[in-house]
Amino acid sequence: MTSESMLVISAHAGDFVWRAGGAIATAVQRGERATVVCLSFGERGESAKAWREGQSLDEIKALRRGEAEAAAAVLGADVRFLDAGDYPLVESPDLVDSLVRVYRDTSPTVVLTHTLADPYNGDHPAAARMAMSARILAQAIGYDAPGDPLGAPPVFSFEPHQPEMSGFHPDVLLDITAGFDTKREAMHCLAAQPHMWAYYEDLAARRGVQLRRNAGPNLGLPHDTKAEAFARHYPQVTDRLS
Amino acid sequence: MTSESMLVISAHAGDFVWRAGGAIATAVQRGERATVVCLSFGERGESAKAWREGQSLDEIKALRRGEAEAAAAVLGADVRFLDAGDYPLVESPDLVDSLVRVYRDTSPTVVLTHTLADPYNGDHPAAARMAMSARILAQAIGYDAPGDPLGAPPVFSFEPHQPEMSGFHPDVLLDITAGFDTKREAMHCLAAQPHMWAYYEDLAARRGVQLRRNAGPNLGLPHDTKAEAFARHYPQVTDRLS
Amino acid sequence: MTSESMLVISAHAGDFVWRAGGAIATAVQRGERATVVCLSFGERGESAKAWREGQSLDEIKALRRGEAEAAAAVLGADVRFLDAGDYPLVESPDLVDSLVRVYRDTSPTVVLTHTLADPYNGDHPAAARMAMSARILAQAIGYDAPGDPLGAPPVFSFEPHQPEMSGFHPDVLLDITAGFDTKREAMHCLAAQPHMWAYYEDLAARRGVQLRRNAGPNLGLPHDTKAEAFARHYPQVTDRLS
Amino acid sequence: MTSESMLVISAHAGDFVWRAGGAIATAVQRGERATVVCLSFGERGESAKAWREGQSLDEIKALRRGEAEAAAAVLGADVRFLDAGDYPLVESPDLVDSLVRVYRDTSPTVVLTHTLADPYNGDHPAAARMAMSARILAQAIGYDAPGDPLGAPPVFSFEPHQPEMSGFHPDVLLDITAGFDTKREAMHCLAAQPHMWAYYEDLAARRGVQLRRNAGPNLGLPHDTKAEAFARHYPQVTDRLS
Amino acid sequence: MTSESMLVISAHAGDFVWRAGGAIATAVQRGERATVVCLSFGERGESAKAWREGQSLDEIKALRRGEAEAAAAVLGADVRFLDAGDYPLVESPDLVDSLVRVYRDTSPTVVLTHTLADPYNGDHPAAARMAMSARILAQAIGYDAPGDPLGAPPVFSFEPHQPEMSGFHPDVLLDITAGFDTKREAMHCLAAQPHMWAYYEDLAARRGVQLRRNAGPNLGLPHDTKAEAFARHYPQVTDRLS
Amino acid sequence: MTSESMLVISAHAGDFVWRAGGAIATAVQRGERATVVCLSFGERGESAKAWREGQSLDEIKALRRGEAEAAAAVLGADVRFLDAGDYPLVESPDLVDSLVRVYRDTSPTVVLTHTLADPYNGDHPAAARMAMSARILAQAIGYDAPGDPLGAPPVFSFEPHQPEMSGFHPDVLLDITAGFDTKREAMHCLAAQPHMWAYYEDLAARRGVQLRRNAGPNLGLPHDTKAEAFARHYPQVTDRLS
Repeated sequence: MTSESMLVISAHAGDFVWRAGGAIATAVQRGERATVVCLSFGERGESAKAWREGQSLDEIKALRRGEAEAAAAVLGADVRFLDAGDYPLVESPDLVDSLVRVYRDTSPTVVLTHTLADPYNGDHPAAARMAMSARILAQAIGYDAPGDPLGAPPVFSFEPHQPEMSGFHPDVLLDITAGFDTKREAMHCLAAQPHMWAYYEDLAARRGVQLRRNAGPNLGLPHDTKAEAFARHYPQVTDRLS
Repeated sequence: MTSESMLVISAHAGDFVWRAGGAIATAVQRGERATVVCLSFGERGESAKAWREGQSLDEIKALRRGEAEAAAAVLGADVRFLDAGDYPLVESPDLVDSLVRVYRDTSPTVVLTHTLADPYNGDHPAAARMAMSARILAQAIGYDAPGDPLGAPPVFSFEPHQPEMSGFHPDVLLDITAGFDTKREAMHCLAAQPHMWAYYEDLAARRGVQLRRNAGPNLGLPHDTKAEAFARHYPQVTDRLS
Repeated sequence: MTSESMLVISAHAGDFVWRAGGAIATAVQRGERATVVCLSFGERGESAKAWREGQSLDEIKALRRGEAEAAAAVLGADVRFLDAGDYPLVESPDLVDSLVRVYRDTSPTVVLTHTLADPYNGDHPAAARMAMSARILAQAIGYDAPGDPLGAPPVFSFEPHQPEMSGFHPDVLLDITAGFDTKREAMHCLAAQPHMWAYYEDLAARRGVQLRRNAGPNLGLPHDTKAEAFARHYPQVTDRLS
Repeated sequence: MTSESMLVISAHAGDFVWRAGGAIATAVQRGERATVVCLSFGERGESAKAWREGQSLDEIKALRRGEAEAAAAVLGADVRFLDAGDYPLVESPDLVDSLVRVYRDTSPTVVLTHTLADPYNGDHPAAARMAMSARILAQAIGYDAPGDPLGAPPVFSFEPHQPEMSGFHPDVLLDITAGFDTKREAMHCLAAQPHMWAYYEDLAARRGVQLRRNAGPNLGLPHDTKAEAFARHYPQVTDRLS
Repeated sequence: MTSESMLVISAHAGDFVWRAGGAIATAVQRGERATVVCLSFGERGESAKAWREGQSLDEIKALRRGEAEAAAAVLGADVRFLDAGDYPLVESPDLVDSLVRVYRDTSPTVVLTHTLADPYNGDHPAAARMAMSARILAQAIGYDAPGDPLGAPPVFSFEPHQPEMSGFHPDVLLDITAGFDTKREAMHCLAAQPHMWAYYEDLAARRGVQLRRNAGPNLGLPHDTKAEAFARHYPQVTDRLS
Repeated sequence: MTSESMLVISAHAGDFVWRAGGAIATAVQRGERATVVCLSFGERGESAKAWREGQSLDEIKALRRGEAEAAAAVLGADVRFLDAGDYPLVESPDLVDSLVRVYRDTSPTVVLTHTLADPYNGDHPAAARMAMSARILAQAIGYDAPGDPLGAPPVFSFEPHQPEMSGFHPDVLLDITAGFDTKREAMHCLAAQPHMWAYYEDLAARRGVQLRRNAGPNLGLPHDTKAEAFARHYPQVTDRLS
């Protein structure tokens, strides 16, 4: 068990699986802690099938919650639901304060969230803005919330659905080969969206091809390397260039 | 001794000291090889003092060569001079071919060069363009030059004199504290420019303050941390986010 | 009569005339429906002359409403006033909800609004942000508002007063020659701003010259071609490149 | 038979198939002419397998030419080879002049080429720069080459291998479903790269999903819609917004 | 005494000293008025030392107020405190209205504020957005606040702590040599942050070197020229290019 | 007579009139020197009418030279022709060297040239690149050309034909009202392009409206203010913000 701690802040219940499931799985495999915060269940904006089937709002929220809990369990992550509502996910000081408390409580050493732009989904940037704001507030000793002031964990945006339209620049290609079977299993917990399973399996292969291209042939990476892409919000701090 | 190999491609004889001396010194301290290529001596554009003193072109080239050799020796790097002329440094297929041969010969695992834009000095982007082009050519098995095809070493731009005017985005803050005394000693080999010594010592402190801010207070970095800033040309490939 | 439906979301009462009058007129000429939503009357920020004359707030709102109704009638568009106040136009969930209901009611196949940046007028980006947000919400079956979920109509920003300062990139040059006489007549309904008539007539000629330059000489477009410029928010979907 | 004419300017022998095969196939299906210009055969930079097998330069050029001719025949396009050499593809006034003559000869109404940036392949931007330059020169009545001055055909960049790293913004999503079987058959003519077949089939599906998302559900597009993405170099000229 | 009037809108109590102290000092030296508005005291986010010493919120606010008053007195500026709270500084129509009234009251001919982006401090962009919004509102005759409508004073962002990460482009290098002793004295009023004194003294020297480089050697500027960097929000209006 | 000296580097014979005629006229009115360098006559790319009339290359060059000389005389500028050919204007070390000698000879205190991007005309960026390169070379004491090393005169791009497509950001709005009658007279020397007279007269009015908007109503600028827009290449150096 290391002291590494990953915090994933996600607008809806499924986002963390599709977009960061490999990052979570491989971190947990290394013995790190992972905590997922779902600001909403995606009950209005990302549950079209259930609405078409005539389910009620409460039924849909329970359904999405159950799927997310199952997927998080597969990935080995703790999951918390803030039930703040979606479509729209409305930013508020109270909701940001809730996130500050999660930061103080989990002391993350790495943070994952959405991109700050997404012309297809206003909840995603709202979640990212709140994740960024709360991280800064949690750093201040003068901010009135339990726990020690946060350090400066790096923040990464995971990949949006239409990356070029959302200003997503893949600064990091993360090798998730070791965790991909786990990610696949977690994706299958999201039973209502089987068309997404193949889509994100293809994406992992595509990013894997790019990872191998950027790593160079000398590293001996396998042909079926899987990857997820991430964008950094702050400069990397390191003592060696690689 | 590791198999790590750093290649620094620099337009003029002094650039590698001011802009990447810390990166070189810390790599050498870890037992890595470092090779510096000076495309020119900076004999016309970066030797104003010697021209004002009335020295000849050949004298100036010898002077700058001697300084660069001394500084490289302090840093522990091999240095090669292509004597391609400066102000302007003219791009040519032959010069790019020379760089391909250096790539094939040194098999770098990391490459440092100038930024692709610099409105104050046309030689810097010319060097960077040639460094980038030659790296791609060296990767091709069909390119006719001795040695094995190159892998895909990451490329970093070191910091230009006026970073915001040159489109320089500091993607990486490199801790050079361990190598800073060596960098200072190497800077002092460039005897004609004592005003630059203080300038780059201040810059290292300034980037060090930013490094500590981005690393967070929990890491226990010392107050006199020194840093150099770099910009990536390709996505980072890694198996963990940090 | 086609099923095509244009929705124009405008911060103030006059914007749709100056900036999109040609687009509206030519759409209506083709038998399409056009609906204009004025979030405010521009009563505080765009009615300087009336304030200098000492008119009251209510008088000014009535004045601007009358002008807008007359101009919309000339263009052949339906016009709705949300009377949300201007300078500042304050974003709110309720106002966005009102726009969602307009989307659901009018089922637009094309949407026009302001740019997302305008350093000269904060109401313009506020209107654009709400127009974009409401469009996304209206697409969700789970959003509680009458009518069917919206499709994915393309969104265009019309031209701001100082385009280069507002990040306006003219992705589309629209030929409005056929509707320009109508636009001119509609502009003349805005009686308080005669200096704007000439300004926008000149702009239409200028964009027309650019349209002809981009179309090429072979198309036989007349010398007095008039155009309006627009910027796309989403990729064009098509089955042929042209 | 229409007067529409598509010109595809490609650095290497295979690029037009992977990146624009669907655009070509669907244009030809509509009765339009299509001409492909291969500036080189990709003999050094894109033929690693043949080099590893020990083939000679001339053998490799013949091999790549044969493949490209077969693929062009499948697509229904005329193909021309300028044999200018690759890795590096060196820009020159003579080569640009050759392209001017192709423009004057084929009178294209639409032009496809590479992106102006590609940090993985210097030949691609070189080809794009020459394609852009030659188009401008061909427009001038005073340029000394046979044929009539060119009009102003729109120019599109096809999708590079790593779009976000190459500044590629997908302005247009082109529905290539009707031509995708033909594209697949053309890809299979490039026998040495079977791993690319699946890669580009996946990409067509991925862009197809995005096309459907941008088109909206109302259009009734099939689930297996295939698409290619393109970036515009000039504003679209049109008389209706859609 | 001239009619020139500088307005500095700052999120926290110390910002105006570190980032614009030289601009203020030199303006006052020329006989211009300067007014500083501190939206908050920086009591939570910028007073870590006092919190660690166990001081109360009220004590800290009083401490920071005292320091800011002393520094403003040294610089020769009037200072006003809006006490709106920090970390987070919450944007609101009322707070913007307060700023409108300051604009109407002080009739600034130049405005200084933060950058619109700062990933290290959310209060800074919040202050800048409100400063920009209020300036626009103050220009409208229809906005209900005492005083005459504002003209169009130019707005400048002062330099953030990590300029490249905050999208800061130094459009103007301001020579503050004549006022630097005063700035130093004002900085020393901020007794809790002695490490910042050296940091901003170094920065002034660094920007001074760049100023001399951009001014050219012919102007005879002294070697110890000090400068502050600023970014423009609007085009410069002038009757001569220099 | 002041020591101020304006240098205008223009690709073709007419550019300086349309794009910078007001800047030149007002500088000359103030007693400053102005020198125009025409790299070519625009004989191939900007003389369509003469080609259609069947004139020979030499006739066209003489025609364009005569027009440019007449216009320069009206503006009060010295004009030099390098006759380097156009369409394409080919960059070369020799041509850059010629410009270095002009810099050394004229000692400009301000430099005007084209934008670095222009997708409609490759000669314009080529001219700008050479103007920028030569300025840097002329600054080096070690560069072998007669005269003293150049200082660091500011460089401005004048406005291209399609500003938003050429990355033109109007950093400066220059009041040319006092020189506009002279500019009009100079434009009329370019007899073959009467449609351009009105186009640039409209543009001057449009930029004038924007100038007045940015200057504010308090300055009492007349309604028929004329302006030209310029983009800066380097930070402004000043001792007061305005």
